[in-house]
Amino acid sequence: MKGKLVAFEGHGKPFRKEERTVEPLANGEIRVRNAYTTICGSDLHTYAGLRQEPCPSVLGHEIVGYIDELDENHAGLDYTGQTLKTGDRITWSIFSSDPNAALSKQGMPQKAPGLFKYGHAKIETNNAFHGGLADYCILKKGTAVFKLPEGLPTALAATINCAVATVSGAIRTAGNVDGRTVLITGMGLLGLVCVAMCKEAGANKIIAADINPSRTTQALQFGADIGMDLSIESASDIIGNVDYAFDMSGSPDAMEFGFNKLGIAGTAVWIGAVFKTRDININAERVIRNLISIKGLHNYNYDDLANAVLFMGNNWQKYPFTEVIGKEFTLEEVDDAFDYAISQKPLRVGIRID
Amino acid sequence: MKGKLVAFEGHGKPFRKEERTVEPLANGEIRVRNAYTTICGSDLHTYAGLRQEPCPSVLGHEIVGYIDELDENHAGLDYTGQTLKTGDRITWSIFSSDPNAALSKQGMPQKAPGLFKYGHAKIETNNAFHGGLADYCILKKGTAVFKLPEGLPTALAATINCAVATVSGAIRTAGNVDGRTVLITGMGLLGLVCVAMCKEAGANKIIAADINPSRTTQALQFGADIGMDLSIESASDIIGNVDYAFDMSGSPDAMEFGFNKLGIAGTAVWIGAVFKTRDININAERVIRNLISIKGLHNYNYDDLANAVLFMGNNWQKYPFTEVIGKEFTLEEVDDAFDYAISQKPLRVGIRID
Repeated sequence: MKGKLVAFEGHGKPFRKEERTVEPLANGEIRVRNAYTTICGSDLHTYAGLRQEPCPSVLGHEIVGYIDELDENHAGLDYTGQTLKTGDRITWSIFSSDPNAALSKQGMPQKAPGLFKYGHAKIETNNAFHGGLADYCILKKGTAVFKLPEGLPTALAATINCAVATVSGAIRTAGNVDGRTVLITGMGLLGLVCVAMCKEAGANKIIAADINPSRTTQALQFGADIGMDLSIESASDIIGNVDYAFDMSGSPDAMEFGFNKLGIAGTAVWIGAVFKTRDININAERVIRNLISIKGLHNYNYDDLANAVLFMGNNWQKYPFTEVIGKEFTLEEVDDAFDYAISQKPLRVGIRID
Repeated sequence: MKGKLVAFEGHGKPFRKEERTVEPLANGEIRVRNAYTTICGSDLHTYAGLRQEPCPSVLGHEIVGYIDELDENHAGLDYTGQTLKTGDRITWSIFSSDPNAALSKQGMPQKAPGLFKYGHAKIETNNAFHGGLADYCILKKGTAVFKLPEGLPTALAATINCAVATVSGAIRTAGNVDGRTVLITGMGLLGLVCVAMCKEAGANKIIAADINPSRTTQALQFGADIGMDLSIESASDIIGNVDYAFDMSGSPDAMEFGFNKLGIAGTAVWIGAVFKTRDININAERVIRNLISIKGLHNYNYDDLANAVLFMGNNWQKYPFTEVIGKEFTLEEVDDAFDYAISQKPLRVGIRID
């Protein structure tokens, strides 16, 4: 059995398309026929040389697909206990690891021993189909699988296992936003999802901030009460202290801005800066006198992904999520897709895998 | 009825001793006959002009004393429900505030409306006895009072309502140190108390760090497993990652050192920097990829003080707490006491109020 894949061979090099034998399933694995992959910001960082990953690799980790075959040693259930069968449309954790490890039991399977991450790994002889830019993805043992709600468009479902699940984790990490004032910096897809999730979680006031005013305007459609143009220095005067400051941008200026807006017992949650930036300057006396917390989150845990699936199933029509995919390409057009993503900066570019 | 007090009139000025009428009790107040006051680091900061407080004031907030009179509108119970009567030896929260305010109910009475802090306030005509360097202290409504365990030396009991209670709050803020590796920077009294409290809370390994090697040696007597001389650059190589990094020093270098030692899901707790210092440089990518938390705490809440009283009652003989008071002075000798504290830097100087 053969399948196509697109190999990333390093910054500045064109993608290499190849057809190769799909490796047979090992103990407890699932073969997925990929249906759709969205290009995430971290794919673009790798493509642009801003972060180093092993090469050649198969990029793309925001993936959705259909079960093609379940190994006989797979329990045949998804994370929520639903039966899995061939043809089911599923999403899955972007990592596999040992679910029985101490870190997994402490709610951090994304840092547990045996970690493998889809869309980030090197192509090896018998281990090549592990990313979204390919016909198939082989799900390793220790991957949490979720059946997708009916009706949810496949293109949107692709964003669940990175963008939506990470925001779900960020809100868990923050604590309870119900009735509170929330500042969110960075109105990319994660920021917009965060706005909508905070709205659904009962936040009293949501301030959406970005240096791009068209993004803050868009945030109002996702539930923000105030859009703040961070490129205007006096813009911050329109808001007082906030209870939570989420940063989805990775910009040191944005993180410092959020930190400096926190009131008593305020909490900053940082998830955006997964690349090299300058250090953040923090006034320790302010942290102490205001009883402030700063918390980081990378990726997410199983329950975060479960909540992300539920959230998108329940809310994809309530907010303009269908605007998220700026343009759609085929797997053959992958070079054009990445060029478009970098030059036009839509929230997401979609890759339809036929 | 008259009493002596010692007024602080500003940096560089000698203390002014005066005898004045003790104001009558107002609604729900308690008049305490002060017995002993220890000079805290923040008293020294004020005395040395490193922080500005209103003047003239009565310094001293680490106080212990005996109930002289309870206003008839006081409920007559301490925080734990024990009956209070004239002659009882008590400690109390260094602040009074509205215990029914939202912040109090959220566990932060030290930031609640109506806040008043003992040992920090301006002397006013009918409101002068509110510090430890005086014969009396009038406890305002909204002050949590605790009867002290029998046998606990009065000099040690004086340290409970600032140093010990703040450390108790820091450990609550951190989470569960049981079985974990803990780094504590700054081996002043708060650091040594933190070592002993972490030991009692079941910490697996306690690393006590300071730039003064005699302090880290002393920390071994309080339960530390490793003493680390922070003035030796290579000293840090002897330890790996830690789960918790408490900073009691307020030194930016120490806070950065602790932050950089945190492993996956590590937590930094900062309580030392309650004065102006340079900003702390934080690598946000490290916060995110390691799922790190940084938390600040200023003062403490009622339960922290309750735990501090219990801790000292149970453990004052188990660790060498009796070494804490470097030298003892009388209220008359207050100028000598502060000079000694600044020049000799003992853990605490005691003021016996006869």
